[in-house]
Amino acid sequence: MNKIIEPRTLPGFLELLPQDQIIFNQIKKIIQDNYEKAGFLPIDTPAIEFSEVLLAKAGGETEKQIYRFMKGETDLSLRFDLTVPLAKYVAKNYHDITFPFRRYQIGKVYRGERVQRGRYREFYQCDIDVIGDGELSISNDAEVASIIYHIFSELDFGKFTIKINNRKVLTGFLNSLGLSEKTTEVLRIIDKIEKVGKDILMEMFDDLSIAKDTANKILEFITTKDDVLSYLNSLSIEDDTFKAGLQELETVAKYMQLFGIPKDYYIVDLSIARGLDYYTGTVYETVIDAYPEIGSVCSGGRYENLAEYYTKQKLPGVGISIGLTRLFYILNEYKLLRLSSKKSISDVIVIPMLEDLSYPINIVNILRNNGICTELYMENKNIKKKMNYANKLDVPYAVIIGEDEYKTNTISLKNMQTGEQENMALEELLLRFKKG
Amino acid sequence: MNKIIEPRTLPGFLELLPQDQIIFNQIKKIIQDNYEKAGFLPIDTPAIEFSEVLLAKAGGETEKQIYRFMKGETDLSLRFDLTVPLAKYVAKNYHDITFPFRRYQIGKVYRGERVQRGRYREFYQCDIDVIGDGELSISNDAEVASIIYHIFSELDFGKFTIKINNRKVLTGFLNSLGLSEKTTEVLRIIDKIEKVGKDILMEMFDDLSIAKDTANKILEFITTKDDVLSYLNSLSIEDDTFKAGLQELETVAKYMQLFGIPKDYYIVDLSIARGLDYYTGTVYETVIDAYPEIGSVCSGGRYENLAEYYTKQKLPGVGISIGLTRLFYILNEYKLLRLSSKKSISDVIVIPMLEDLSYPINIVNILRNNGICTELYMENKNIKKKMNYANKLDVPYAVIIGEDEYKTNTISLKNMQTGEQENMALEELLLRFKKG
Repeated sequence: MNKIIEPRTLPGFLELLPQDQIIFNQIKKIIQDNYEKAGFLPIDTPAIEFSEVLLAKAGGETEKQIYRFMKGETDLSLRFDLTVPLAKYVAKNYHDITFPFRRYQIGKVYRGERVQRGRYREFYQCDIDVIGDGELSISNDAEVASIIYHIFSELDFGKFTIKINNRKVLTGFLNSLGLSEKTTEVLRIIDKIEKVGKDILMEMFDDLSIAKDTANKILEFITTKDDVLSYLNSLSIEDDTFKAGLQELETVAKYMQLFGIPKDYYIVDLSIARGLDYYTGTVYETVIDAYPEIGSVCSGGRYENLAEYYTKQKLPGVGISIGLTRLFYILNEYKLLRLSSKKSISDVIVIPMLEDLSYPINIVNILRNNGICTELYMENKNIKKKMNYANKLDVPYAVIIGEDEYKTNTISLKNMQTGEQENMALEELLLRFKKG
Repeated sequence: MNKIIEPRTLPGFLELLPQDQIIFNQIKKIIQDNYEKAGFLPIDTPAIEFSEVLLAKAGGETEKQIYRFMKGETDLSLRFDLTVPLAKYVAKNYHDITFPFRRYQIGKVYRGERVQRGRYREFYQCDIDVIGDGELSISNDAEVASIIYHIFSELDFGKFTIKINNRKVLTGFLNSLGLSEKTTEVLRIIDKIEKVGKDILMEMFDDLSIAKDTANKILEFITTKDDVLSYLNSLSIEDDTFKAGLQELETVAKYMQLFGIPKDYYIVDLSIARGLDYYTGTVYETVIDAYPEIGSVCSGGRYENLAEYYTKQKLPGVGISIGLTRLFYILNEYKLLRLSSKKSISDVIVIPMLEDLSYPINIVNILRNNGICTELYMENKNIKKKMNYANKLDVPYAVIIGEDEYKTNTISLKNMQTGEQENMALEELLLRFKKG
């Protein structure tokens, strides 16, 4: 007798039952299909990298969360996002890549965060990025957002809003207030407004020794919500960065509409700053309108230089990431999973009531050859147990085959929802499946 | 200026260029689609597990290869196959699972093997298993093999043979020779025949102190290739294990035919033993006929007790695993990749020759809404560079839109293979894509 070890899964690691995994995979497939529909190319980088390579840039919080270890003499780390591996990949394969390089990657990443509900240590990121060689048209910033719009529309979890902003508009505005030396700190504070509210924001500005009336101007700026582009033009700020950012923002907004995003699905929101240092232009966040407290479910932006730690080539890009594992958790938690498609993998289960399986197996072969996902129940159990199995798996239809069906070369089709049962020829069954 | 770090990928880790990744993903999809067509349910277990759980059984070679490390106080390991996580999963979720539990899993596993061509430290396994609760019909052993047949036929890499055997037949035969105490060692030797040949096999038997004529009997047994089932019956061995094994083998062979595997695609091969201790009945290997030196590209078998280290429940099962990463390497290396499907993700690339992108973007929206994978070239380059980009990406069709097309509300469709170009209405283009 072996010693029994408790079969535990690590805390912070999602492991679903099959019925939930089916839904999870449907969401993943919708994301992947939409990335491919827009012609993005797949890549699949390793989950493990040389620590030296992966951590070329990292620091602070991220570095603490990393799964880092030695194997023999080699210092290894698990990837914590898909952006650093992309930078490595593009720098490494620069001469074999066709630019602009439009790539998607869907894969697991690892962060040893404190365990709490809805936060995972292993989670899927689903990224798209467009990387230019030296330059990249601003219109890409709009297309990327439109792909997110199509994915979230198809996921059908309710009204959402893609919020866009431009870091140049923010920094240019801060320049015009004489705050250019405090830009990073101020942006980091601005980024917190949704979480902490206006009063605490004002305190934080005070801590940074920003004068009250300047702080008020910032607050007015980032809280302007109506007709933001006109408001920005009306400010008549002469700073070059501001003017460049405003022009980009106007172009992106115009193209987002051209790419088919309805007007009420996106807004310019000047409070969106994104903490990450490397965004330099457009920034995005996406919120579910009914649940602003969830925060952004899809973020990204434009950066000047993807791979500066690996190459001297200037590689500007724009990208967006969906945190699939967290999104799934949220949709589940808020009961927003409205995907109406199938709950089971099988379209039909064939249930034989015969000793000899030759006839039922032949039916199964024909159904599968016609592209119908078909399961065959082969265990030697009574009819009740067989039907119970089909019920538990939520298979929509059962094909029941007993002596009568065998003798008459027919099948009996049972609708598992209504309980209705009909005898028919196999050809009739195939026809019905073809019609849906 | 940052210090430049060389963007290296770890040795033994596959990282493909997009054009190869597209093919890799096609193979993965064919495997997944076939698993789902047979109604197998998806699961997705973490890549990291508690070492105590993952290594409950492991020992010897496997343990040495494991990526094992501490994170804080926790002893962690990366999974080295998908079978141990399945055992954990089934034991853990025993009360929420419907048996027989038919699951597939496709995911990366990790083994720190010595680096050599065609051997990977991170590789995809694509597993199907059927797990019974206490018992499981032998017909499952045939169905699992038939799914492999369909996958490999669809991959179209040339003639292959699924070799089946039954461990009970082997052990029963060894019992009848009075070798029951040496079963494990003898099976391990038999398993080597393809690699080492008959002479070395005889030496190994001699080292085990097996008499020459007994060794000859074993050799005759495992090298009998014609009409093996009749041969086995003709031996009239009275050992119960042998008889049970023979009956199973006959049943599996019969059902494999019923499940649509043509007779020349499978054989009973008594030399197939599979080194792994935990197989107890049917065992499979699959070889590419023209390249026997490659060895098995898909193996598996029947086991009595999946999760004995995690639960007292008896959970017999049968499963097969495709090592996708190695299979891809082999098909590439031997030039057996005959998948005729698309080399690019995009079906069509839209190339605007206009300043204003409104009309081209509208065309792109319509194409995508019709399910056509469509890329839009948006960079401000000359026509030569634009066409060059389309050529490099191997996109089959380009839709070219200049002033003339815009004014006449048409498009020009260019076949990138033949160079032919035609002006037409958008409706005509959609019709052509619908027809394929």
